[in-house]
Amino acid sequence: MIPPKLQILIDTIHTLLKRGVERNVKNLLSQTHPADIAFLLQHLEEGEQEKVFQLIEDPTHQAEVCSEIEIKDLAPLLDTLDTVRLREIFHHMPSDDAADILAVLPEEISGRILTAMKEAASKEVEALLQYGEETAGGIMTPKVFIAEETKTVREVIEALHRAEAIEMVYYVYVVDRENHLIGVASLRNLLTTKPYHTVGEIMTTDVISVSADTDQEEAARLVARYNLLAIPVVDKERHIVGQITVDDIIDVLHEEATEDILRMGGAGEADVLEKSSFSNVRARFPWLLASMIGGLIAAQVINSFSATLSKVALLAAFIPIVIGMSGNVGTQSAAIMIRGLATGKVRTAEIGHILFKEGCVGALLGILYGVILLAVIRVQFSAATIAMIVGFSIAVNMLFSAFVGTFVPLVFARLGFDPALSTGPFVTTSLDICGTVIYFSLASLFLHLT
Amino acid sequence: MIPPKLQILIDTIHTLLKRGVERNVKNLLSQTHPADIAFLLQHLEEGEQEKVFQLIEDPTHQAEVCSEIEIKDLAPLLDTLDTVRLREIFHHMPSDDAADILAVLPEEISGRILTAMKEAASKEVEALLQYGEETAGGIMTPKVFIAEETKTVREVIEALHRAEAIEMVYYVYVVDRENHLIGVASLRNLLTTKPYHTVGEIMTTDVISVSADTDQEEAARLVARYNLLAIPVVDKERHIVGQITVDDIIDVLHEEATEDILRMGGAGEADVLEKSSFSNVRARFPWLLASMIGGLIAAQVINSFSATLSKVALLAAFIPIVIGMSGNVGTQSAAIMIRGLATGKVRTAEIGHILFKEGCVGALLGILYGVILLAVIRVQFSAATIAMIVGFSIAVNMLFSAFVGTFVPLVFARLGFDPALSTGPFVTTSLDICGTVIYFSLASLFLHLT
Repeated sequence: MIPPKLQILIDTIHTLLKRGVERNVKNLLSQTHPADIAFLLQHLEEGEQEKVFQLIEDPTHQAEVCSEIEIKDLAPLLDTLDTVRLREIFHHMPSDDAADILAVLPEEISGRILTAMKEAASKEVEALLQYGEETAGGIMTPKVFIAEETKTVREVIEALHRAEAIEMVYYVYVVDRENHLIGVASLRNLLTTKPYHTVGEIMTTDVISVSADTDQEEAARLVARYNLLAIPVVDKERHIVGQITVDDIIDVLHEEATEDILRMGGAGEADVLEKSSFSNVRARFPWLLASMIGGLIAAQVINSFSATLSKVALLAAFIPIVIGMSGNVGTQSAAIMIRGLATGKVRTAEIGHILFKEGCVGALLGILYGVILLAVIRVQFSAATIAMIVGFSIAVNMLFSAFVGTFVPLVFARLGFDPALSTGPFVTTSLDICGTVIYFSLASLFLHLT
Repeated sequence: MIPPKLQILIDTIHTLLKRGVERNVKNLLSQTHPADIAFLLQHLEEGEQEKVFQLIEDPTHQAEVCSEIEIKDLAPLLDTLDTVRLREIFHHMPSDDAADILAVLPEEISGRILTAMKEAASKEVEALLQYGEETAGGIMTPKVFIAEETKTVREVIEALHRAEAIEMVYYVYVVDRENHLIGVASLRNLLTTKPYHTVGEIMTTDVISVSADTDQEEAARLVARYNLLAIPVVDKERHIVGQITVDDIIDVLHEEATEDILRMGGAGEADVLEKSSFSNVRARFPWLLASMIGGLIAAQVINSFSATLSKVALLAAFIPIVIGMSGNVGTQSAAIMIRGLATGKVRTAEIGHILFKEGCVGALLGILYGVILLAVIRVQFSAATIAMIVGFSIAVNMLFSAFVGTFVPLVFARLGFDPALSTGPFVTTSLDICGTVIYFSLASLFLHLT
């Protein structure tokens, strides 16, 4: 799974470190892309990581590597550096990354860094620290390239020359005299316009923007929908306070997908590689509680039918298939809803229509599998009544499960919770209980009839 | 969930259509962003959709709307247009979008379009149709802005003026005299360099590229890792054949996340809103087959322990909790692996280490819940032996499930399958069977002992 190019890099560094030729390591690192060094660091042993990190000579380069590393791996690396070097690194780092890193470092290290940083830069970072982690403010960079509408293209290009500190310039945001955002022009617009035009003349006035407290997912949705390279962040008076670039949006999308999948699997924030077994247990334990309570209720239900069960012990054999298959149908429905809600294809307003369609699907699947199981059990176990009970239960249960699997994520979404939370503990557990009730109710009904 | 701006748009169009003032609809549409029109179309009723689509006057605008609409919704819209208009629209469409659309349209419509399109443009599209849908070739656009290394910045900017047909220019790809890709320069580089320099002087030579048959996920990973706005696609001789822009990469990420979640939920390619109930049943039916077979095997297992079961009917009551809770642990482990493999955090090379850590987590969770259940069942059902059996089964089963949930996705990944495929039918089903075997084996063991 490791790209060959990176495998070679890892092996070479390994060999060079063993031979103790640090000069060569330095040279190699200076020619390596920060993202690749970050990858390398995550695949070295612990003693080696710090060594290699310290051998990155150029502080700008080292800062870029920091931006690429998983934040939680950074603390031990940064801890090995002295205050002067730390200041240098954080001075060269985009302030949104700096803020993210400082937010999670042990206070002792972060305090040292903040006091060491130049006052201006440090203020910028502190300003960013005030926004919620999952908001537009939390992922924006305050460095934006802005031009007044009366400036000519020539003047703007000259300003761009001087704006070395702004790494990401994809658009020129145009403001009026009171500094309100009124338009946007692309670099291509600048390149292909006569230099004496003003940016006010070439700008597009329909600018899509977000405010600092907009949810990061919403910002990602806008960037994706309108195919943007960056989106400006404005305050209530439409003054620009920052921008979010598309590379940060991609990180948001990755994060959201991971969150959805772990929540759907009922695994919370578990992370087998990066956290200790103990903290993994702590993350996963509560999700299983719901399942335990559900299971105990199901046990009560079955126990209350003990009279029926003692008459026909074979009934017990089909408990797994009845609750297993209807649970699966429910999980299918929930997965479809969760993803549909995340991509915006499903809207909570359409509940009626969606429930009807999912109900049809559940009913069809139920009838199909009900008939199949009726036939199979009749032959395999030569038990006609039980076959009928199981077939009928499967049909009813699947219809019911499709409803529950569809309905619960929609309700979660309406109430403002993440719908992905609903499958792990909620949908599966409630289907276990209801599945047992339906199965045994039908069983006593049929067994009394015959 | 609909943004207020778009809700107003939908309502206004509704009202205007009802009043029959088509001129006003035309005006409104001409001022609306293509992405918003696409959104609007998907929220109108069927008769209205075609009407509104036809009221988009400018063919370029109409082409942009087509690029934004879900491809499967396009057929009925395009079918209402005459050949002349179709040619115009496809002429104005980026050829990667055109190829994607043509690939799924009914042959009768796509043939009409291909013959109507100008020969040159049509060839370009046909060339794209040859690449696999999920490869870099399948999502690239062949329109790339290329400059020879000896050209000056001034000449390149002039060429950019004339390159109107290339919508997305984020980078200038630099080639040598034999047309091999040798470097890249950003638009900002062009803007901030003296016009008499050659692009060969200002380019970066370390260009990250992919080949046309590279998997689209790999291309997405590279763009994300190196924070690129576009990545060039080259053939074996490093001639540029196209580029993939970051907006298409975002689409890939959305698609992959959707695929993973639906596969994990065992829902295949189901899509409740866009497809018929019948085709949803067809997509979901096979995933349930595995679950059925697993359930029938579990039934056989339980039936073979009927002697034990008839002695202690209460055993049946705890079947749901034993298989439910261990199934959940397995799903947790699988979700963590699936996401870890997708983000590259987990590598198949580390199998030993990961299995050990997950084993520890499973064992800890098992012991915790085993003890809790032992206590609860002893009190709630006043059944000491059964409490012991269930507690012990939960402990063994959770350890075992953590192993299976971890191991199976890793094996799937090693064999080249999507690990997300493993949870739906495989992990849950095998845990149902093994869970029953372990539970009843322990039960007969304990019941014979006492």
